Amino acid sequence: MDKLKEECGVFGAYSINNNNVNNYIYMGLMSLQHRGQESAGIAICDTSGPLGNICHHKDMGLVNEVFDQEILENLSGNLGVGHVRYSTSGASNAVNAQPLVMKYYKGTLAMAHNGNIINADNLKHELEKEGSIFHTTTDSEVIACLLAKNRTKVSCVEEAIQIVASQIIGGYALIITSPRKLIGVRDPLGLKPLCLGKKDDCYFLSSESCAIKSIGGEFIRDIEPGEIITITKDSINSDYSLVSEKRAHCIFEYIYFSRLDSVIDGISVYDARINGGRALAKSYPVEADLVTGVPDSGLAAAIGYSKESDIPFSLVFHKNTYVGRTFIQPTQEERETAVKTKLSILDAAVKGKRIVLIDDSIVRGTTIASLIKHLKEAGAKEVHVRISSPPFLYPCYYGTDVPSSSELIAHKYTTDEIRKHIGADSLGYMKIEDFDQMTGDLPLCKACFCNDYPL
Amino acid sequence: MDKLKEECGVFGAYSINNNNVNNYIYMGLMSLQHRGQESAGIAICDTSGPLGNICHHKDMGLVNEVFDQEILENLSGNLGVGHVRYSTSGASNAVNAQPLVMKYYKGTLAMAHNGNIINADNLKHELEKEGSIFHTTTDSEVIACLLAKNRTKVSCVEEAIQIVASQIIGGYALIITSPRKLIGVRDPLGLKPLCLGKKDDCYFLSSESCAIKSIGGEFIRDIEPGEIITITKDSINSDYSLVSEKRAHCIFEYIYFSRLDSVIDGISVYDARINGGRALAKSYPVEADLVTGVPDSGLAAAIGYSKESDIPFSLVFHKNTYVGRTFIQPTQEERETAVKTKLSILDAAVKGKRIVLIDDSIVRGTTIASLIKHLKEAGAKEVHVRISSPPFLYPCYYGTDVPSSSELIAHKYTTDEIRKHIGADSLGYMKIEDFDQMTGDLPLCKACFCNDYPL
Amino acid sequence: MDKLKEECGVFGAYSINNNNVNNYIYMGLMSLQHRGQESAGIAICDTSGPLGNICHHKDMGLVNEVFDQEILENLSGNLGVGHVRYSTSGASNAVNAQPLVMKYYKGTLAMAHNGNIINADNLKHELEKEGSIFHTTTDSEVIACLLAKNRTKVSCVEEAIQIVASQIIGGYALIITSPRKLIGVRDPLGLKPLCLGKKDDCYFLSSESCAIKSIGGEFIRDIEPGEIITITKDSINSDYSLVSEKRAHCIFEYIYFSRLDSVIDGISVYDARINGGRALAKSYPVEADLVTGVPDSGLAAAIGYSKESDIPFSLVFHKNTYVGRTFIQPTQEERETAVKTKLSILDAAVKGKRIVLIDDSIVRGTTIASLIKHLKEAGAKEVHVRISSPPFLYPCYYGTDVPSSSELIAHKYTTDEIRKHIGADSLGYMKIEDFDQMTGDLPLCKACFCNDYPL
Amino acid sequence: MDKLKEECGVFGAYSINNNNVNNYIYMGLMSLQHRGQESAGIAICDTSGPLGNICHHKDMGLVNEVFDQEILENLSGNLGVGHVRYSTSGASNAVNAQPLVMKYYKGTLAMAHNGNIINADNLKHELEKEGSIFHTTTDSEVIACLLAKNRTKVSCVEEAIQIVASQIIGGYALIITSPRKLIGVRDPLGLKPLCLGKKDDCYFLSSESCAIKSIGGEFIRDIEPGEIITITKDSINSDYSLVSEKRAHCIFEYIYFSRLDSVIDGISVYDARINGGRALAKSYPVEADLVTGVPDSGLAAAIGYSKESDIPFSLVFHKNTYVGRTFIQPTQEERETAVKTKLSILDAAVKGKRIVLIDDSIVRGTTIASLIKHLKEAGAKEVHVRISSPPFLYPCYYGTDVPSSSELIAHKYTTDEIRKHIGADSLGYMKIEDFDQMTGDLPLCKACFCNDYPL
Repeated sequence: MDKLKEECGVFGAYSINNNNVNNYIYMGLMSLQHRGQESAGIAICDTSGPLGNICHHKDMGLVNEVFDQEILENLSGNLGVGHVRYSTSGASNAVNAQPLVMKYYKGTLAMAHNGNIINADNLKHELEKEGSIFHTTTDSEVIACLLAKNRTKVSCVEEAIQIVASQIIGGYALIITSPRKLIGVRDPLGLKPLCLGKKDDCYFLSSESCAIKSIGGEFIRDIEPGEIITITKDSINSDYSLVSEKRAHCIFEYIYFSRLDSVIDGISVYDARINGGRALAKSYPVEADLVTGVPDSGLAAAIGYSKESDIPFSLVFHKNTYVGRTFIQPTQEERETAVKTKLSILDAAVKGKRIVLIDDSIVRGTTIASLIKHLKEAGAKEVHVRISSPPFLYPCYYGTDVPSSSELIAHKYTTDEIRKHIGADSLGYMKIEDFDQMTGDLPLCKACFCNDYPL
Repeated sequence: MDKLKEECGVFGAYSINNNNVNNYIYMGLMSLQHRGQESAGIAICDTSGPLGNICHHKDMGLVNEVFDQEILENLSGNLGVGHVRYSTSGASNAVNAQPLVMKYYKGTLAMAHNGNIINADNLKHELEKEGSIFHTTTDSEVIACLLAKNRTKVSCVEEAIQIVASQIIGGYALIITSPRKLIGVRDPLGLKPLCLGKKDDCYFLSSESCAIKSIGGEFIRDIEPGEIITITKDSINSDYSLVSEKRAHCIFEYIYFSRLDSVIDGISVYDARINGGRALAKSYPVEADLVTGVPDSGLAAAIGYSKESDIPFSLVFHKNTYVGRTFIQPTQEERETAVKTKLSILDAAVKGKRIVLIDDSIVRGTTIASLIKHLKEAGAKEVHVRISSPPFLYPCYYGTDVPSSSELIAHKYTTDEIRKHIGADSLGYMKIEDFDQMTGDLPLCKACFCNDYPL
Repeated sequence: MDKLKEECGVFGAYSINNNNVNNYIYMGLMSLQHRGQESAGIAICDTSGPLGNICHHKDMGLVNEVFDQEILENLSGNLGVGHVRYSTSGASNAVNAQPLVMKYYKGTLAMAHNGNIINADNLKHELEKEGSIFHTTTDSEVIACLLAKNRTKVSCVEEAIQIVASQIIGGYALIITSPRKLIGVRDPLGLKPLCLGKKDDCYFLSSESCAIKSIGGEFIRDIEPGEIITITKDSINSDYSLVSEKRAHCIFEYIYFSRLDSVIDGISVYDARINGGRALAKSYPVEADLVTGVPDSGLAAAIGYSKESDIPFSLVFHKNTYVGRTFIQPTQEERETAVKTKLSILDAAVKGKRIVLIDDSIVRGTTIASLIKHLKEAGAKEVHVRISSPPFLYPCYYGTDVPSSSELIAHKYTTDEIRKHIGADSLGYMKIEDFDQMTGDLPLCKACFCNDYPL
Repeated sequence: MDKLKEECGVFGAYSINNNNVNNYIYMGLMSLQHRGQESAGIAICDTSGPLGNICHHKDMGLVNEVFDQEILENLSGNLGVGHVRYSTSGASNAVNAQPLVMKYYKGTLAMAHNGNIINADNLKHELEKEGSIFHTTTDSEVIACLLAKNRTKVSCVEEAIQIVASQIIGGYALIITSPRKLIGVRDPLGLKPLCLGKKDDCYFLSSESCAIKSIGGEFIRDIEPGEIITITKDSINSDYSLVSEKRAHCIFEYIYFSRLDSVIDGISVYDARINGGRALAKSYPVEADLVTGVPDSGLAAAIGYSKESDIPFSLVFHKNTYVGRTFIQPTQEERETAVKTKLSILDAAVKGKRIVLIDDSIVRGTTIASLIKHLKEAGAKEVHVRISSPPFLYPCYYGTDVPSSSELIAHKYTTDEIRKHIGADSLGYMKIEDFDQMTGDLPLCKACFCNDYPL
């Protein structure tokens, strides 16, 4: 479909009493799958065994394609980290899959990384000048190299991480298993989410709280932007030396990336979307017979719009969940058929109706145009489109995969031109000033809407 | 999950002007995937080529697992039939996958079959006594054998089909490609659905109208119960000799099996479910803060309940669509975790709320019990369960896979005992006498509720 | 390479004391792999379990590609039959793989078949006229159909087999497992080999004695042409009603098909080839420095030529055994390179030498021409070719895959023209009258050399 | 089987006129497959394209399992290197497969390596101390790291290689493709073979001459021990700065590792083995009826013994070439059956005969004991064993995989005890002083026989 793409999800687990964490990581990744469908991997070790004995498995594909019962059982240990990936930096292939497992001066280390390092190329060039070699094209390997370099100069891995974190610029959440420690790092602006949880004797670090919840764990808190958290058998330590006052949380975590049942930096994604829908209803009221959302990301905002406007919510699309990544695109037919195969109109619900249709964003505009066309063909009298984000105008340098400006419909047309182009009877984009209705006083990165980059 | 299982979906296509129908069948099967996820297959031939040259491919798995671009391109021709299968009769293995392709006296024939033949064992035994051999354990092979036998005695395949249809007893929809004909047969009671559609020069037969719609085709009409329809290059002929007055449409097509956007025997599945929800609201009103449905099959009835009761509809669950068939079940954890991984509660929507929860049926009761428990843990004040079908008490002999009576919760307990068992604050099952609110005066098979078998 | 192709190998096993025979069949097939590399299969049942419960596995590929440890372990039972196949009748695909497993009036039956039935099409047509259907294009299914038909008329399966055997015309070896019997049938002329063996409590039927020997078993005797042998828990019975005086054993079993360590109809294949080489030396003596054979089938005859002529045997080729079926043919290079990759010349052994080169047959002549060219390039002074079979002139109707006459070099050219064509300094073919030096007074089928078909 | 294992084979190709070399490398690796069956890989680039654009594919398995037509076609370019591997250093898994492809200061580099670096662990430790990270456990990555380090200090890659070659100690043959150069390095002692060839505009570097010959190329010369050869578009340069007088060629290249049709350091492997057989005949004459060899490595020496002794050579074993790596070992049977399945006795050739049996080495003695037992069971009167190498007593540190001393039969028993143990009537090992009959005055490494290590 016609959507922005998040880069990655990360999940780490450490059982203090040496219980096996492989199932926790597997299930955690299942619940972070929406953050990346390109590759998946798990690296795991046994802290009671010989130092540095990490086993890992990673490959292209979804979590349940990459892992089967046998593979998972062979990944046994009480400390591990997992990763799901959609690539932005680094080409799409198996060698770039994460976690990255490497041997270095102080043993073996596994690392999973979500985000983008703006100055990765410069750092890589410096390292190459000193004789480093690189096997992948990922930012993660650059971080690993820096870590290994600096580890030789300091007395513990946390110190090395602190030095590296002060060198890298960008949005990132990192989980590292150094032989007997589970370490999490979050970028100082808080662009990428990372949180801490617990179940029995086991600690978790996760991109989102939903993964902790799905395995029956308890959410403890978000990792603070700039915090380096180190979990050992005996203690949990936090290093705040990189914490600064400036914050810039990514608004798209609330609008689209994160799962509806996650709570990110104290704000429920569900509430944020409901309130986003309410804000749209206040800013762009319209007389209509029903409100609906484009499945699945527009549904919560549609409920919010319905609550605020008292226009009843209704189902209007049937989503065929069997149409997956490997669906063979029809060659002799136009693109619209593919949309129809994935999202089918419930004619009986639509005929003669004035519809408010909520979606989270418009990137190229092709999908929404198809849907409106099909709704009208099915007898919809009016289709009023409400978008729960402002027009998307500028690229993201922090890890979100955005089409080039020339492909962004909002970059080329005015809102009214877009309305005409997609065939809507009215069109309203969320106002930037209404973000506080979604996320309160949370400091946000709004660079993609207003070209105001925090870094 | 804890659901009834439909047996199969069938889809046939015939392009009069010799265009390739492989993509139509592939996309048709994608839209019938909900009717069977165990195996998939396509058989296709070119009516302008040498007679009886059918190529086919079938295997265990979902449509998009069984077919890739290359395989699909090799299945080229203008007349074909496809099948998705969940097995009831016949063990689960590749040899039982359909369509069945066979050579017989008059050439080559492909057949796809949805349903169950009650007297298959008797017929098979009779055939064996005359020396027939069987390669599979499916009803379909019995039908094929009878067809070949009778074909030697009559002048056209339709006549043979008529004889066979008069011998077999049960619920079935059959699609057959005899070298130059596309033939559909529907059981006299109309237990299984089958309909006719068209796009440009191409005719379709399909289990459900949604598949015709999804490929941009036009729904023409349902095949009449007992009708044998034969599409040739020059004509469409219908044989009504087996049509009788007695009808008994399967109510579960409306409650659960068919897709929300299908219209079966003149009644929209969406409308039927909305009206089912309304009927529940009338029979079992309750004071509550929100109505919701168990995704995905309970959602439409929940909207109906909401419309009738004016209690607002709300989202309460997040369904993880990545949790598929190959999901590795946690071994060290209780079953509930698996439910949690698949359906996650939106805590922010639930806390302190009195909830009406709609589901389409209760089979064993395990899933609904888990969901209620999780809702209460998330802070729900009350959970009132409404089921859009009556208690399920008796086995189905017509092609629906039902657990043994000892596993059916309604077989063992009274409604109030079930309510306690699943932890609900109240429980209401759809009343049999309310079916007319869903499906009007359509004659129904209600055997599984009241032991009154039409055959 | 440029060789004739045998159709199949069959192997059956029956452990009287209910021991598992899966490993015996697997290893037996490994030793019959030279008879067919296209598909492999095993069907097996437990005679102490419920009647007719046969499990089987078959697929395209070599024995060790089709079976792995897990698959083999799941094929458990004390009575079974296996098959390796190179197809002559019946297209090359998985559905045609054997053994054929079918359900019929009297239970379940597995059948493995080596050979060709000349009147299969007529028999099939008759069966179709009576209403039979066919799932494959193999002769084996025709036999199975006839068997099922006739079984309804007689009191035991052996009787039915006797009737069927009297109807089918051709060369064949059949192994059948009827629920509690292991049955072998050999065609009345003895065109195809079949023998009986034993190890501990386990009886074997096998295409060749080498398979029995390789699993540590004891060779008992050849099955007599026309014999139907039935092994039960309590007895071994032989029906000789189809035995006739006329015999016609296939000479190519000795020249090429059978393995060097087999004994077929009382004659050691090794001895036959050694003696064939001796006969060539007597008929076509030449002054030379060394004798060698084209690996592997020409080596034994070369040893024989060496013994008779006192010209020393030498190695001249290195065969790359890693060049298998899936070797990617060079596209930009001529065919000769492929020969070179498979058979490499030992230059040091060849330079300045006069060479006698023995091969078992010349089909198209392309391979031998390449080899001679390479030998001369490597410095061979003379290359004298001796072929341990007469010129191949006529097609085989009994199960050997022969190129069309237009591709047979001996069909188009005289021996001297062939000599020039392949670049040899002299060329001698085995004389038909010398066969008695190979196989004594064994009655032979020599139809492919002299157009004198025994049927 | 019970054999020593070579580590690797390497093959590089460079087409000056920009022709595609992928087929050459593929076919070259096919001809070096005997040097390593665990993994295979090819890295290739187009020197006329953008610098450093290397594509590669490598995986566990044989060459024709790892590559298919499509994969091979996607590896397009005029400069490349391939590798087949049996691991000694570095665990057996896909990440350790070669060639190693890496990005470094000066672009991209692919490297294939045969051999073992004795001081790899020390060098690795030093690199780690300076902050290097390692993704694999191979020596090759250590060499690559050193190369990258040193490359930053010097003006061309050859200089860096020279420095690295002066640091690493061991036996090795290296092929490197720096963006526009094909570079070969051979260890100063000449422990590992490497040679140069040519076909049309294309230069080759190969472990053995057989690979050059098999693709129709012309062998030019061996790379000199210590030589660094650099092939560019315009020139071939040799750096001899590391060449020393001391040489120590591995005798096992002649006895067993190299292919019979290769010429290594001026000596034909075929001649060496023939002469080894002759030497055995002179040192250990015996009265016998026939000489034979254990296929395939003992055959040439058997021919040599036959020539010297005038005892006729005969075939005695049939080797089943279908018994490959994935053969399922019989569990209920003793090991001997596996030997029997792979090597079958030709009873007719053996009965009543006194046999001289030649093999290249005895490691554990299990295989030869089985063979002798089977020969005697088949009626052999006497079996006289001659081994074309001295008793194997000490480990190899230069890249040959040897079982631990406790498993070496010669380490535990005297020759006569071994004779009894294996059941031979007499036993003679090649005398160390007879090596000059095999390889003339070539300086040899004989460390594994006499504990005299050259490094």
